[in-house]
Amino acid sequence: MENIEKIIKNLNLKFRNIDGEKLIIAITCDENKNVLMTAFMNEEALKETLKTGYMHYYSTSRKKLWKKGEESGNVQKLKEFYRDCDGDALLFIVEQKGVACHEGYYSCFHYKLKDGKLTISEDYYK
Amino acid sequence: MENIEKIIKNLNLKFRNIDGEKLIIAITCDENKNVLMTAFMNEEALKETLKTGYMHYYSTSRKKLWKKGEESGNVQKLKEFYRDCDGDALLFIVEQKGVACHEGYYSCFHYKLKDGKLTISEDYYK
Repeated sequence: MENIEKIIKNLNLKFRNIDGEKLIIAITCDENKNVLMTAFMNEEALKETLKTGYMHYYSTSRKKLWKKGEESGNVQKLKEFYRDCDGDALLFIVEQKGVACHEGYYSCFHYKLKDGKLTISEDYYK
Repeated sequence: MENIEKIIKNLNLKFRNIDGEKLIIAITCDENKNVLMTAFMNEEALKETLKTGYMHYYSTSRKKLWKKGEESGNVQKLKEFYRDCDGDALLFIVEQKGVACHEGYYSCFHYKLKDGKLTISEDYYK
């Protein structure tokens, strides 16, 4: 765990004040570069992710740590990750089990703007 | 412009309080599914993006709207976009002119965690 704290320090992250919490943005993609979802992480969520090798996020609505797929089984195994230039966001590449979205779609980004309206489309995720 | 306001209303967005502003998360990818960057948008930035067809964001440090590439020329032409399931994030697919990162790299996510340290790597963006 000491090593993980050192890694997190080396990441030199810029936590933002998001809905009253100190959080960073996590963008999660599969190994085919599909954007699966975005969520927030506090330091604890990042620690748990690095410690266990499975994605953990921080829920702003429930105000607590959650392991992705804990209930659904649709866990995300961490393969590698990148930090952006200003340090407020991390890009995680994962092996997605099942689907990422709680609405049953592969990606949370399944609402496409078409003719001025939102329509469900999974065309992007091939 | 009336039409754009209607589109934005139809998007049913959930603006969050981020560093004291009402913002949503914008994730921007190229047409080969590379994640180029993430930034924030207020309603004005989204309106300008839809009106002009070029990506505009809101800078939390400068506290103002900015057109991506206004100074560098590295503009992002909007091709299509998706909303996520909870409405606090948009995924934009763009045609990137030049590079996306102000540090001169193709993507802002060029810092890879390797052996516990951040190292510059563009392996992901092929």
